[in-house]
Amino acid sequence: MAEAEGISSATPTEEMNGAGNLMDFLDEPIPDVGTYEDFHTIDWLREKSRDTDRHRKITNRSKESIWEFVKSLLDAWSGWVVMLLIGLLSGTLAGVIDLAVDWMTDLKEGVCLSAFWYSHEQCCWTSNETTFADRDKCPQWQKWAELMTGYTEGAGVYLLNYFLYVLWALFFSFLAVSLVRVFAPYACGSGIPEIKTILSGFIIRGYLGKWTLLIKTVTLVLAVSSGLSLGKEGPLVHVACCCGNLFCSLFSKYSKNEGKRREVLSAAAAAGVSVAFGAPIGGVLFSLEEVSYYFPLKTLWRSFFAALVAAFTLRSINPFGNNRLVLFYVEYHTPWYMAELVPFILLGVFGGLWGTLFIRGNIAWCRRRKTTQLGKYPVLEVIVVTGITAILAFPNPYTRRSTSELISELFNDCGALESSQLCDYINNPNMSRPEDDIPDRPAGKGVYMALWQLALALIFKIVITIFTFGMKIPSGLFIPSMAVGAIAGRIVGIAVEQMAYHHHDWIIFKNWCRPGADCVTPGLYAMVGAAACLGGVTRMTVSLVVIMFELTGGLEYIVPLMAAAVTSKWVADAFGKEGIYEAHIRLNGYPYLDQDEFTHRTLATDVMRPRRNEPPLSVLTQDSTTVEDVETLIKETDYNGFPVVVSRESERLIGFVQRRDLILAIKNARQKQDGVVSNSVVYFTEDAPQLPASNPQPLKLRRILNLSPFTVTDHTPMETVVDIFRKLGLRQCLVTRSGRLLGIITKKDVLRHMAQMMNQDPESIMFN
Amino acid sequence: MAEAEGISSATPTEEMNGAGNLMDFLDEPIPDVGTYEDFHTIDWLREKSRDTDRHRKITNRSKESIWEFVKSLLDAWSGWVVMLLIGLLSGTLAGVIDLAVDWMTDLKEGVCLSAFWYSHEQCCWTSNETTFADRDKCPQWQKWAELMTGYTEGAGVYLLNYFLYVLWALFFSFLAVSLVRVFAPYACGSGIPEIKTILSGFIIRGYLGKWTLLIKTVTLVLAVSSGLSLGKEGPLVHVACCCGNLFCSLFSKYSKNEGKRREVLSAAAAAGVSVAFGAPIGGVLFSLEEVSYYFPLKTLWRSFFAALVAAFTLRSINPFGNNRLVLFYVEYHTPWYMAELVPFILLGVFGGLWGTLFIRGNIAWCRRRKTTQLGKYPVLEVIVVTGITAILAFPNPYTRRSTSELISELFNDCGALESSQLCDYINNPNMSRPEDDIPDRPAGKGVYMALWQLALALIFKIVITIFTFGMKIPSGLFIPSMAVGAIAGRIVGIAVEQMAYHHHDWIIFKNWCRPGADCVTPGLYAMVGAAACLGGVTRMTVSLVVIMFELTGGLEYIVPLMAAAVTSKWVADAFGKEGIYEAHIRLNGYPYLDQDEFTHRTLATDVMRPRRNEPPLSVLTQDSTTVEDVETLIKETDYNGFPVVVSRESERLIGFVQRRDLILAIKNARQKQDGVVSNSVVYFTEDAPQLPASNPQPLKLRRILNLSPFTVTDHTPMETVVDIFRKLGLRQCLVTRSGRLLGIITKKDVLRHMAQMMNQDPESIMFN
Repeated sequence: MAEAEGISSATPTEEMNGAGNLMDFLDEPIPDVGTYEDFHTIDWLREKSRDTDRHRKITNRSKESIWEFVKSLLDAWSGWVVMLLIGLLSGTLAGVIDLAVDWMTDLKEGVCLSAFWYSHEQCCWTSNETTFADRDKCPQWQKWAELMTGYTEGAGVYLLNYFLYVLWALFFSFLAVSLVRVFAPYACGSGIPEIKTILSGFIIRGYLGKWTLLIKTVTLVLAVSSGLSLGKEGPLVHVACCCGNLFCSLFSKYSKNEGKRREVLSAAAAAGVSVAFGAPIGGVLFSLEEVSYYFPLKTLWRSFFAALVAAFTLRSINPFGNNRLVLFYVEYHTPWYMAELVPFILLGVFGGLWGTLFIRGNIAWCRRRKTTQLGKYPVLEVIVVTGITAILAFPNPYTRRSTSELISELFNDCGALESSQLCDYINNPNMSRPEDDIPDRPAGKGVYMALWQLALALIFKIVITIFTFGMKIPSGLFIPSMAVGAIAGRIVGIAVEQMAYHHHDWIIFKNWCRPGADCVTPGLYAMVGAAACLGGVTRMTVSLVVIMFELTGGLEYIVPLMAAAVTSKWVADAFGKEGIYEAHIRLNGYPYLDQDEFTHRTLATDVMRPRRNEPPLSVLTQDSTTVEDVETLIKETDYNGFPVVVSRESERLIGFVQRRDLILAIKNARQKQDGVVSNSVVYFTEDAPQLPASNPQPLKLRRILNLSPFTVTDHTPMETVVDIFRKLGLRQCLVTRSGRLLGIITKKDVLRHMAQMMNQDPESIMFN
Repeated sequence: MAEAEGISSATPTEEMNGAGNLMDFLDEPIPDVGTYEDFHTIDWLREKSRDTDRHRKITNRSKESIWEFVKSLLDAWSGWVVMLLIGLLSGTLAGVIDLAVDWMTDLKEGVCLSAFWYSHEQCCWTSNETTFADRDKCPQWQKWAELMTGYTEGAGVYLLNYFLYVLWALFFSFLAVSLVRVFAPYACGSGIPEIKTILSGFIIRGYLGKWTLLIKTVTLVLAVSSGLSLGKEGPLVHVACCCGNLFCSLFSKYSKNEGKRREVLSAAAAAGVSVAFGAPIGGVLFSLEEVSYYFPLKTLWRSFFAALVAAFTLRSINPFGNNRLVLFYVEYHTPWYMAELVPFILLGVFGGLWGTLFIRGNIAWCRRRKTTQLGKYPVLEVIVVTGITAILAFPNPYTRRSTSELISELFNDCGALESSQLCDYINNPNMSRPEDDIPDRPAGKGVYMALWQLALALIFKIVITIFTFGMKIPSGLFIPSMAVGAIAGRIVGIAVEQMAYHHHDWIIFKNWCRPGADCVTPGLYAMVGAAACLGGVTRMTVSLVVIMFELTGGLEYIVPLMAAAVTSKWVADAFGKEGIYEAHIRLNGYPYLDQDEFTHRTLATDVMRPRRNEPPLSVLTQDSTTVEDVETLIKETDYNGFPVVVSRESERLIGFVQRRDLILAIKNARQKQDGVVSNSVVYFTEDAPQLPASNPQPLKLRRILNLSPFTVTDHTPMETVVDIFRKLGLRQCLVTRSGRLLGIITKKDVLRHMAQMMNQDPESIMFN
């Protein structure tokens, strides 16, 4: 406010002369001038400047009347209102999705007789049975075969259940892929690569539309329920961003400014992760680290607000029925020991290797899908993969249930009341402590059985996930990645536990593991493994550790998590710097300028166009081009804009004009302005000269001319140019030498050059 | 690695020609070219470019031999090594400071007879008494008067203790201020404003030196022990940054590059906050939000590592004797209710008002100190303030003890075993639950007594803190601010609690507070108040909430904290946007370009020099200036650099040369290069022409010429210029119109213009 007051009083008015010409097109706007076409890159500086103008106008007007003052207050608060709405809607949607997935996943196995809309757990809540195992078999819940045949046991019953399980899975996934195909093709995939690209300043119309929101929400439920190896976390980010986009349209401040809109979307991404895991701080850091491009501090604070509102909305819906905010709430009772860092680091190595394998395998498969016949049958592909998944998953109890349940069980420590197979330890009959602090025990038959099943589940998950991610249905990879890590971690954890139990006397165990003590927590290993695998695939760092920290709620286990995450990132980076999202961005050829440093020794002159053997740059002159010349130029070239120079001889630059603005302005003039004909001279100068009446009316276009185009000299190192493009969010930059225009560098040129320097195929970059 | 391999193989060599000239001064360096003078601004782009060159060389060389490869690995790992060292040293120093402060604070009151180096608490650890109250009076610990006179009671004893308390306080603070005055003047204050300035790219030599580190550590202990109303959190950030700077000197990668050095310092600041509160995540966010300027993601991850190492080092020293990581660990047992948001928001308003009052009062006092006689007697000032503080503090038990202890007590919930005056509630004789879940009870005499004392303590703290912060001793304001808020919060909390107890039937209490229930937690109010006050003073947002979240370790209370923090920030912002650190930066005239948006409608042409009536810009020409001309120009002007143009007539820009580099190059040439005399022509062109032998030897200076100076057009809006300066970290920017050089804008011009637009005194900005 303090600065705002200064405007009207302190600004020396004679210094303001220059500003009028630049700005007056805002006063009598040509329709659509200053907007962007689909699949084009926005100009961050221009968006920012437009927002400042808007803000300035509102502030000035706010002194005129009370009503205008209230309007200016509303404008200032609209950001918070949008955040609140995003939080509320994305929290609600996440809750609804969770409830629906719960119900439909169970529907594959059976139905609740007392109320068919209850999931297995809800159905048996009212049951009187006391133990978890008995409660699972409450009479209200009936498997399909039982309902149809009346029998509960036998090969026929098993096969019938098997058959119906596969059938439901196929039905769900067929519905999902059909809805995506017919109504919203953008609803497929995780959406994070595209959101990253959009946030970096690219326009993909419809990607965050209402239709996408609706279809993605519905098909996400179907896809997850079908039992495919995919998660809902990535798509939830997409859903939250769609909500953000939806609410942007309520306020012209956001809907008419692509830069401001992206601030809202960054916050929405944070809200998405916040509800995905119940980790608001982790969500904000994820948005900051992984998704966002331009993240001013104001956005940080608002993102945090949106993430919190979303998390608390989800909690009040309480889909997990445990009043917990987080998806996998765990509490461990024993500390970890220094020696355990060795298995933790090994899990980190595993995570890194898994990340590399997954990225390479998945990208190879997706490339094959793009380039071969395979891509033409997306529905068939989904059906086949679902069929294989369901057929292989049913026999193994660890793959039959939903992946989140699996992870949850793997993370949990075995308490005294635990009835799962994984907790089938042989109890010491002398021990009768009711506390959770149970000492290490020898593993029973159930544990060994579980180990075999887990090993099979691990191989199955590793292979099937590679083929699943990228199909034409909503699919996130957080949950499958975490599942792979959690399985591996649990196996290692049980191995270490049994080693420690049976070999107290080994030197490594001697110091920290007395007989009868509870020294190894296999659940912690599962969590560390999950973090390592997720880190290997996504290359998240701080946000990963913080999300995991929020799951456990204690700084106690942050060192193991950090050790695994660091190792996993290093191992994976050794095989290739790209995370899965960057890899998909590159595969799809989106114009995304990543944050990696460009270290090559090239100069602007090496990158700029025209190259040595190319025709000279297409330029306009400030006062000697006719409307016809301009129209020919527009017709014959497809450049996004043209530099304007004093004259072709001097080549001194005076500005830059966007192709789109030029087309619109000429169209507008031809329609509305009398006397503008093909012969009219286009003037970019401040004043058009007084022409004799015989000459056609001149067309003054200074108001669409950008008088402050960005220039660098031909000697500027490319690393600086890349830095400038990245930090200022440019679309293009003009290259000069001693004041003479030499050429132009567009974002596409920069990306192509970077790809070339990295031995990649430079032609895959989308037109921008 | 992938890109690195590409360099030698893929780079088309004919595209590389241009690069040679720019870079060859690195091969035969003129001493000190490319370094900066004290109180000057660094050029971020140049630093970055130099680091890339260095990196490129090492990568290229690493293929030559195994040894070079190992060296390149070491270089790549040096960042992590530095982080590890910073974490270890700053954690250790924080632990030592905590222990020393504990001991010396208690020394003001008495001494441990069994071992004089024990603090009161340590002295009585071995005591056999069971209750906290009795243990406090263990026989090994004797107050000074008891030791001297043998009596434990009586007016004389009280007065003697009082006298000695004041004497010790005066002694400590005198020692502190003398050490600062004599050995390290930079060791005073909190250091955060200066660190912010340094991180934004300013050079203050010695500010992070070894000497400052040593003296600040020692005097911090003395200042805190003296009982002054100051904290150790800000200075710990300074200490951690000194550690960072120290370890930078081990690796030329960091010591020779001011840009890379600042990455390390950002991480060190995170480590500082991490040990100050035991909150590693909060520390990283504090560094990101409040301190750092340029914070790439790589730094985020490393900062997190440094912060974690520091926190765990501190924990292994265990200065608080409770194995807890955090400074004020609290656990509450009851949830909060919606209706409580009203008092929380009121606390937020209080925090905002306190922030405004403190900033205005403190800045006014500091300005008085700078401009009047007062500033000439720093030692006397410290003595007087300490005297007043000690005399007023002793009679009140809440101000006598150390401020952290006070905050800790105020945060704590009253358990069943609590013996403090604040927990003197009247127990229901029928109630005999041993749990912590005590219902609300009526307040006893002790609580009412405590309320009066707390109210007095509040007024005292508010007033004295304004005069304390900014004196010539190390002083942080986190702890005093939090104390103010905690006192106010506790008072409000007790008031609400008693209202709820005595008026169950009021509508607002009816729904959530049944008789016999534990519905209000006064400790939570204290915490919310502390957050609000800290927020009002510093304007921290996310980092504040995250630090508080880490203190309580549960997301449960994040909504109250957030509500108070948001309110406090809005209220404080309504009175002025600046936090205390920005206010001090402006008071001291540091060239700091803050992140606030510049919204005025001025253009580059309004800001650039020369102004309309000033003499033309001092430029050099590329091939017609003599050494003598250059020397005259250097003598007659004090500009930091000069543009080089083709000729004075055409004014076409070809580059920019730094004053310092020019001086060094000419000095070097005069000493070492034969035939360079005053008459020699200075050539900035690629090749000097072949001159007849009679002419003096030419001086070729292209290698110190920056061929890619930053230019904007005169029509560029100042908001864009400010954005460019901020994001790219420029020192200066040249202004052109249609390729002609018109003028120059330096960072100082930008700051002066911004100050002018905000009606501030533009002349207070330091020379840069």
